[in-house]
Amino acid sequence: MAACTVYSTLSLKTNCFISTPSSKTHYGFHHKQIVLYTTSKRHNKRVNNPYVITCAASDSQTVVIGLAADSGCGKSTFMRRLTSVFGGTAEPPKGGNPDSNTLISDTTTVICLDDYHSLDRTGRKEKGVTALDPRANDFDLMYEQVKAIKDGISVQKPIYNHVTGLLDPPELIKPPKILVIEGLHPMYDARVRDLLDFSIYLDISNEVKFAWKIQRDMAERGHSLESIKASIEARKPDFDAYIDPQKQYADAVIEVLPTELIPDDNEGKILRVRLIQKEGVKNFSPVYLFDDGSTISWIPCGRKLTCSYPGIKFAYGPDAYYGNEVSIVEMDGQFDRLDELIYVESHLSNLSSKFYGEVTQQMLKHADFPGSNNGTGLFQTIVGLKIRELYEQLVASRAQSPVKAAKA
Amino acid sequence: MAACTVYSTLSLKTNCFISTPSSKTHYGFHHKQIVLYTTSKRHNKRVNNPYVITCAASDSQTVVIGLAADSGCGKSTFMRRLTSVFGGTAEPPKGGNPDSNTLISDTTTVICLDDYHSLDRTGRKEKGVTALDPRANDFDLMYEQVKAIKDGISVQKPIYNHVTGLLDPPELIKPPKILVIEGLHPMYDARVRDLLDFSIYLDISNEVKFAWKIQRDMAERGHSLESIKASIEARKPDFDAYIDPQKQYADAVIEVLPTELIPDDNEGKILRVRLIQKEGVKNFSPVYLFDDGSTISWIPCGRKLTCSYPGIKFAYGPDAYYGNEVSIVEMDGQFDRLDELIYVESHLSNLSSKFYGEVTQQMLKHADFPGSNNGTGLFQTIVGLKIRELYEQLVASRAQSPVKAAKA
Repeated sequence: MAACTVYSTLSLKTNCFISTPSSKTHYGFHHKQIVLYTTSKRHNKRVNNPYVITCAASDSQTVVIGLAADSGCGKSTFMRRLTSVFGGTAEPPKGGNPDSNTLISDTTTVICLDDYHSLDRTGRKEKGVTALDPRANDFDLMYEQVKAIKDGISVQKPIYNHVTGLLDPPELIKPPKILVIEGLHPMYDARVRDLLDFSIYLDISNEVKFAWKIQRDMAERGHSLESIKASIEARKPDFDAYIDPQKQYADAVIEVLPTELIPDDNEGKILRVRLIQKEGVKNFSPVYLFDDGSTISWIPCGRKLTCSYPGIKFAYGPDAYYGNEVSIVEMDGQFDRLDELIYVESHLSNLSSKFYGEVTQQMLKHADFPGSNNGTGLFQTIVGLKIRELYEQLVASRAQSPVKAAKA
Repeated sequence: MAACTVYSTLSLKTNCFISTPSSKTHYGFHHKQIVLYTTSKRHNKRVNNPYVITCAASDSQTVVIGLAADSGCGKSTFMRRLTSVFGGTAEPPKGGNPDSNTLISDTTTVICLDDYHSLDRTGRKEKGVTALDPRANDFDLMYEQVKAIKDGISVQKPIYNHVTGLLDPPELIKPPKILVIEGLHPMYDARVRDLLDFSIYLDISNEVKFAWKIQRDMAERGHSLESIKASIEARKPDFDAYIDPQKQYADAVIEVLPTELIPDDNEGKILRVRLIQKEGVKNFSPVYLFDDGSTISWIPCGRKLTCSYPGIKFAYGPDAYYGNEVSIVEMDGQFDRLDELIYVESHLSNLSSKFYGEVTQQMLKHADFPGSNNGTGLFQTIVGLKIRELYEQLVASRAQSPVKAAKA
């Protein structure tokens, strides 16, 4: 197969184009498909696996959402909630690698950024770097492929096999309506970050992370308390250096903290969850409680709702977050019953729901998902509605001025 | 003039009747007028001054409002605000005693319960009792006359002259649409209490009372700090024994406290004011903030309103007060500007206003009254609207079932 080296930006017909590739990437052309090889020595097991890039049939661009979080922090639950908002069910690519990390529905494709690990498990051990370390990840390829998809071009995305710890042969990713890139580094690389139409950071506090890990790794997997502590401590320096700083770029942060309703609680079962929403983001209008821009606390348990101990407390207000103006909605505690949720929903504004009670309906539909009775589920669902609205507004604005949108 | 002693309840024609008088009261009849003497030896200066009681022309009963508060605690400002809600101006009775304590407008008549002092200043000194002591007040006469007015009968009410400290000859009080009895003991006597259609207690905390007295008595009247302290201390035992306990009976309490926005504030200039509203009172629907029955705090200063230091903070929630279920609206801080007040008004519900902005309009109209920029003015105005609504509802319900109403 013929291959040529291209260093300049290539504009294809219609809305397809490719930006400057990394120095080690070679392109070949076949009709409207672009075959993309890497000759990188980092990829021991798949040298010369071709990446096929195809132009999209339609003029509509893919909307790209970034979701950052540590592993085991509820990203997959969030993705299931998001997909559900669009009415579909997310499934792995049909007939592909059974260990694929990708989830595809009618509207959304969720890819896991672990697939851009440049070092497999053995490689990381040899070099003494963690998966959190940027040196274990190929940001050039991540950028190129996300950009290609955004521009309507299919790509052959690598697969990192979490079972074997190896880099498997790539899978074809066609441009969906909404591409979600989820993982450790969606906002780390400035080029990738600039491709995002909306970005979310799931920020689980150390106390809660510890409580969750204990529950999962100790109770379900038989790990010792010491080994769990050691594993968290070992990850911490890289996490603080490379993952945590991304939250300053997020349009929305879901922060999960221990409850303040029970003094000195360290069970980590009852959660205080904050939805930190950046102001001034196009097509994103922050949710508020009662009075936009003021500072409010609200305990809905009273004459109308009787909540069991320790109750539920909401808060809302403007704040500053990494130098950005934000609005924060907070929920501490958990729901006992359905009518509590619909009651709360009726007092939140700017929910981006399509009918009264949609948030409650979504939460009830997935009552078995983790966090359905607390702020994690509530705010994930709300962010899902926000993303749907953002998508619809972007599509509408592009339909109005396609030339302008293609240039944007 | 003929006089007869009556011990039984007398029912007059139409809706007039008189209940059992005290053993020292004598009645004489002249057409539809009742001439009432007292032969009490307590009233040295006006033995045989006749009290004339006349039947009301209409069938509508007078609505009676009780307002309890210590002297110098803003009762007169409150009364001016209340009168203003009904559109009139309150003035002393025309051509009467220039030292009369009564204020009359088209709709309301405000009488001061000091007029029912049974001992004048000299008498109190001789017996060693304060004006706060029930023994210095004639509750039998208070009850009889308030009852008579409520039943549509004019009375000759005594006058306590605050300038001379003497009991002056009485003045004629005709039954108004609304009678307000204001003073130290409107809810002390169970019989008087039962006549009240609505009752209010102005509860000024000791810290604020002290700050106010210092400002008035020291700055304006040249009293010394020591004499002010001594005067407050001297009143305290009787105040605690006879005045303060009345607040348990009040349908609404306006509680005035030092601000909590400034730590350790003792200036008494910025106030935290609470409107404590009893639940389950007929024709009185408590004001609430955002969500009826829940617990809320609200700082309206934010993106829309910029408040100067120390800002404004509202709170709302259900509570218990002397064993009664109440709803409390609280305002801490003060308004800088007009738009702040209209903004606050737009977020309060159940205000009983007749049009949007009526509270703000009333407050602006009397911007020169004390407390117009803080919770005392706001809650006095709101209580005024509440009384107007209560009056209109009572009148409407009586019009629907006049027989039932006359018996009630």
